[in-house]
Amino acid sequence: MNLESPTLSDSERLDRLRLIRSENVGPVTFHALLRRFGSARAAIQALPDLARRGGRAAPLRIWPSAQAEQELDAARRMGARLLASDDAGYPAPLAAIYDAPPLLYLRGDAALLHRKTAAIVGARNASANGRRLAEDIARDLGAAGFVVVSGLARGIDYAAHRGSLETGTIAAVAGGADIAYPPDNEDLQRAIAERGAVISEMPPGTVPRAKHFPRRNRLISGLSLGVLVVEAALQSGSLITARFALEQGREVLAVPGSPLDPRCRGTNNLIRQGATLAEGAADVMAALEGMTRLPEPVAGQETQLTEITIDSALETDRRTIEELLGPSPVMVDELVRQCHLSAPAVRSILLELELAGRLERHPGNRVSLLLTASAHGS
Amino acid sequence: MNLESPTLSDSERLDRLRLIRSENVGPVTFHALLRRFGSARAAIQALPDLARRGGRAAPLRIWPSAQAEQELDAARRMGARLLASDDAGYPAPLAAIYDAPPLLYLRGDAALLHRKTAAIVGARNASANGRRLAEDIARDLGAAGFVVVSGLARGIDYAAHRGSLETGTIAAVAGGADIAYPPDNEDLQRAIAERGAVISEMPPGTVPRAKHFPRRNRLISGLSLGVLVVEAALQSGSLITARFALEQGREVLAVPGSPLDPRCRGTNNLIRQGATLAEGAADVMAALEGMTRLPEPVAGQETQLTEITIDSALETDRRTIEELLGPSPVMVDELVRQCHLSAPAVRSILLELELAGRLERHPGNRVSLLLTASAHGS
Repeated sequence: MNLESPTLSDSERLDRLRLIRSENVGPVTFHALLRRFGSARAAIQALPDLARRGGRAAPLRIWPSAQAEQELDAARRMGARLLASDDAGYPAPLAAIYDAPPLLYLRGDAALLHRKTAAIVGARNASANGRRLAEDIARDLGAAGFVVVSGLARGIDYAAHRGSLETGTIAAVAGGADIAYPPDNEDLQRAIAERGAVISEMPPGTVPRAKHFPRRNRLISGLSLGVLVVEAALQSGSLITARFALEQGREVLAVPGSPLDPRCRGTNNLIRQGATLAEGAADVMAALEGMTRLPEPVAGQETQLTEITIDSALETDRRTIEELLGPSPVMVDELVRQCHLSAPAVRSILLELELAGRLERHPGNRVSLLLTASAHGS
Repeated sequence: MNLESPTLSDSERLDRLRLIRSENVGPVTFHALLRRFGSARAAIQALPDLARRGGRAAPLRIWPSAQAEQELDAARRMGARLLASDDAGYPAPLAAIYDAPPLLYLRGDAALLHRKTAAIVGARNASANGRRLAEDIARDLGAAGFVVVSGLARGIDYAAHRGSLETGTIAAVAGGADIAYPPDNEDLQRAIAERGAVISEMPPGTVPRAKHFPRRNRLISGLSLGVLVVEAALQSGSLITARFALEQGREVLAVPGSPLDPRCRGTNNLIRQGATLAEGAADVMAALEGMTRLPEPVAGQETQLTEITIDSALETDRRTIEELLGPSPVMVDELVRQCHLSAPAVRSILLELELAGRLERHPGNRVSLLLTASAHGS
């Protein structure tokens, strides 16, 4: 199994894996560091100093080469391919999101990542009618040439994968690509790994926990031109996927349902808020018609998010930013407006705070200070 | 029972009844004639000449006084009040529509016509859930001070009246106010006549036929600030009511439902087209909040529709208009733009054509030529 890209050396690929697995390094920080330092190796060397500037006393835990090698071995054993976000094989819609996974494991058919995609998500405790609709719509979308993306959960996700298994289905999973979750979907997951594609940004063997699911949801929407929600209660995970889709500039569609069924309150609410009402695959296709070209990576946004000037951050500037931050998320742009520092300087300080474990990033380019975290210990 | 208004003499009221019951006189023509000639009596005298100018050879059938007297007697016997469109007791929202019934029979509580109103309509073959929703929403709207308007049909209409019988309900019926239709709703109709209000523009004893229902539907929407559709198939009568509501400047709301139920296709489609999604009475109240003041009669529109200059119509002008008209409805405004005649002159010619039985009026101030009608016979 070829894990390497012609454009990336083995050692740089290993260093990228070390960088994204290192303490306090998320996708946004990863991309910023890579842009600033040119290579993962150089970024790793800079990490301790950056974290110290952000207020970190104990040394930052850099991911050891040996553990990264072990992870790659495990991936090889399950027959997974490792895609870097600048590889040609990396899915273009996903590369366009601001927190694209720097590295992505793929089991199955890589060609599916380069066809037009529509996500179908919804309630785990879906009604029989909801499941039937999801499966029918997935089948019809498949017949029309769409690859169907979902999250391999019970209920709607299961039905969506089942309906599109023959024509092309992608499962974005919250844990390792080799971990069957939920266990009763194990057969389906194996079938998708053989005939479709299973996508994960987590190390093999990772058992998914609650905090992993929102990250998985951004993959589902990020891989897709649009997201169709079939049955969703208020405040359910499917609505998080819909919100990600909106933020990522993708279409949001929802199937309406009876107000008497709590599983339709979320979808009805989406429609009320402007989502496209969908009764079948034809509605999905009509909505995505204008998006037949895959979204290009938003170059301006990427630059804006990653351009940093590490060296210009003075101690007084850092204190200004720390004072402006609080536990409530604030837009980075708003922060820049209020502090009279250059945007790259602000981003440098935020990056250092993040590496120090004192900053949390939120969707919509917002950040908050982690007040409870031990800012100066490990 | 007092059938008279202080502002209208007995004889003028009788003449108005004769005018609206005369051949080829609809509400729009009625209002135009009354405005032009000042009284129903003068308009009746002018009818034969106007019809002749429109191309009518046989004499127009003017409604005899004796038959009008008989109708008023029948109305008295069932305890109905006859409201003229300029009576103070006439419902203000209905007076605002361009084809308001010149005369309206009312059985029951006249005070209901002057409270804020919301219509609930929908499928006759409604589901148990749809009926329950309609009844619950009607009850909640009633508790919030709304009078609920519906059409006394089976299914949703029945449930809407039932839910609002104690708090205030108005039934607009297609036949005479004394005719129970459908027969199985007889008990409910009697109860509404006693505790609510039954509204009809048809003579007592009229058994409703298919062509009467669209006219009834415009009453339902015309009486209401907004129309909520609960379950409706595609191309069903409830959608006609919704279209009238739109044309009358009223709110349109619809309850969403499963795409698998054909009874929800019409409501889902309304939402797709811009109707407000409603899951309960709170949504209806929120939508009607901005309309707590009853709509005023649109004075400008009324003038525009009724200002005519009977005497200026020359034979050549008439032929110009006849040539421009065809079996497909055309906007009167468009006609005026294309013919280089004054708007009042065009309207005069249209009125004469209508009286001659050669013109059909359509919603949205549109008209078409009746090609199959015998233009020169009775």
